[in-house]
Amino acid sequence: MQKPRLMTPGPAPVPEDVLLKMAQPVIHHRSAEAKENIVKAVDGLKKVFGTSNDVMILTASGTGAMEAAAVNTVPKGGKALVLNAGWFALRWAKICQAYGIQAITLDTEWGQPVDPARVANALAENPDTVCVMGTLSETSTGTGHPVEAIGKVVAKTDAVFAVDGISGIGAMECHQDAWGIDILCVGSQKALMLPPGLAFISVSPKAWKKIDAFDAPAFYFNLKSARKKAAESDTPYTPAHTLIQGLNVALDRILAEGIENVWARHKRMSDACQAGVQALGLSLFSSRPAEGLTAFYVPDGIKDSAIRNKLQEKFGIYTVGGQDKIKGKIVRIGHMGYTDELDVISGLAALEMVLAELGMDVEPGVAVTAAQRVLMGQSQPAGV
Amino acid sequence: MQKPRLMTPGPAPVPEDVLLKMAQPVIHHRSAEAKENIVKAVDGLKKVFGTSNDVMILTASGTGAMEAAAVNTVPKGGKALVLNAGWFALRWAKICQAYGIQAITLDTEWGQPVDPARVANALAENPDTVCVMGTLSETSTGTGHPVEAIGKVVAKTDAVFAVDGISGIGAMECHQDAWGIDILCVGSQKALMLPPGLAFISVSPKAWKKIDAFDAPAFYFNLKSARKKAAESDTPYTPAHTLIQGLNVALDRILAEGIENVWARHKRMSDACQAGVQALGLSLFSSRPAEGLTAFYVPDGIKDSAIRNKLQEKFGIYTVGGQDKIKGKIVRIGHMGYTDELDVISGLAALEMVLAELGMDVEPGVAVTAAQRVLMGQSQPAGV
Repeated sequence: MQKPRLMTPGPAPVPEDVLLKMAQPVIHHRSAEAKENIVKAVDGLKKVFGTSNDVMILTASGTGAMEAAAVNTVPKGGKALVLNAGWFALRWAKICQAYGIQAITLDTEWGQPVDPARVANALAENPDTVCVMGTLSETSTGTGHPVEAIGKVVAKTDAVFAVDGISGIGAMECHQDAWGIDILCVGSQKALMLPPGLAFISVSPKAWKKIDAFDAPAFYFNLKSARKKAAESDTPYTPAHTLIQGLNVALDRILAEGIENVWARHKRMSDACQAGVQALGLSLFSSRPAEGLTAFYVPDGIKDSAIRNKLQEKFGIYTVGGQDKIKGKIVRIGHMGYTDELDVISGLAALEMVLAELGMDVEPGVAVTAAQRVLMGQSQPAGV
Repeated sequence: MQKPRLMTPGPAPVPEDVLLKMAQPVIHHRSAEAKENIVKAVDGLKKVFGTSNDVMILTASGTGAMEAAAVNTVPKGGKALVLNAGWFALRWAKICQAYGIQAITLDTEWGQPVDPARVANALAENPDTVCVMGTLSETSTGTGHPVEAIGKVVAKTDAVFAVDGISGIGAMECHQDAWGIDILCVGSQKALMLPPGLAFISVSPKAWKKIDAFDAPAFYFNLKSARKKAAESDTPYTPAHTLIQGLNVALDRILAEGIENVWARHKRMSDACQAGVQALGLSLFSSRPAEGLTAFYVPDGIKDSAIRNKLQEKFGIYTVGGQDKIKGKIVRIGHMGYTDELDVISGLAALEMVLAELGMDVEPGVAVTAAQRVLMGQSQPAGV
């Protein structure tokens, strides 16, 4: 027997009641019931995002929301500042390139957080920047960026701040309005505990001004159309509304737990996982770890695929490796969404056994014990 | 007690085994299992579409596939011929407008089929047309267009033929390759028996030549990226893969029944529904009815909303009215996907009772009997 244990930084496990809600008979997407579902979902998302801004639901993966943010805000030839510190931050630049938006990339070493002072300098050098494009949790490196501090910098300028919160929202503390995030892009399959298929985008009045100033090369992802329909609790095109029904069950869970408690749970899981990994003598990849995943360097002499395959074969644990230039160098363990402290403990126990089998000198229980000490408030992870 | 009966031209009812498949624990979208699901889905879709061309899966509603077809095929300023005969055909023109594509609209009265001879004339007058954009089943009017004949016309020119098959594929006979359809756009929530959230697009070598000739203003819907990833049984961005798993169960059902038998079932349901509606003295809206839905004029003195609301309140039957310029004038009954002849019979029985309650002089059983005669091979619908 093998139980499936999804421990990736998205998709994350989906609660059984959410899955079963989506297995109910399909309703019509323009019915009163469907509109009530949208009203409820938008209300819940606003609480989770910490915003009083418009929230719109897109049928797409999170990349669709990023594209919507970019093409609706920056006209062709206009300037964007991309806070490039990982594979997914780089996606902002690729989107800009596809639409003729001039992307200035502020490069940060992968695994390091973006420095707000450098953002301030870049904006001073590029005062015509229309949009700063950043990331809350960089999934490719397991890094949490100082979005609050960057938001303060951007707020002082005429630029708007668009944030990819796809793997961050729900897993890391974030207050959209208070932190000066003008456009927040979120995906369904991470800490929001749904399968992939929906994206959410929340837009501030400052950003709407940019959007209203020109006709964007956008149809499916046109935010003006989305805003118009959202005002009627509707969407311009048929939405994936079984997912919206599931979303409401997931949001009920999140709001019943309390978003602050959800963040605190992720912080505990993150701290425990970091401590466990470090107790094994492994090094964290990021100097400012995100709270929905832990990325660690593969130890010398062992292949990342060997670790990942054994975790899967022996224990049904699915993890991911590194992308692009860090392919083969790291393993990423997700602990987000419908995941708790004991999932992290059992993941670490499995990691111990797998590494021992692969020839590492492992004292059984060393990672588990270190994680338990953190969960019991007796210690903190060592840091990088 | 009220049983829900979804009788709209999409979304259509989803089989219970498909719904429960999607309620299984979520897997990772880059796992070997996820890739096998894509291989199987693409193979099944090719059989349903009648094509040996590339088939790509998009996470979007059908409109996303239409946008992908338009923006990847016709460069800005290039010419498209839109076979405009309803609300959804008009969407082609709106997509063109958003991206600066020059759309020549060949207007046909709503409810009438597009005349292939007029398409030939329009192409002769516009020899620089890059793409002809048409519709297999126009959902807004309940009209099936002569796509095979139009395909023959377009095939003689340098233009490619893009067809919105969203509510048509699976409900109406269609052979993509044999009929000269270069780009076929399909949605998940119609006769393919899934919830909304996926779109499918199939592209011919003739169309790939147009696509490869320029850099399209597209990122999320970039077909070159989709083709590259499809070659690895993958997608450029996280797909709604629980829906892909459900799709495979739905495709198993369709291929077990046999696509020709699925078409024949829809033809029987369509003929029976038309005969029933006409036996009530009602007029069909379309002179060439599509086979996934029946659109009829609302009788004098009765409001469309009164009919639709009573069908829903008394019998749980959800139908839709007219859109745009025919709002209030018609009612549309869907009979596609996971729907059989007895669903049509019970829908007609409910319609009889509701119209009688609304003051029409109705002989009980008149529509049901007429439909049964058609199903028993004793008669045919009267036609328009």
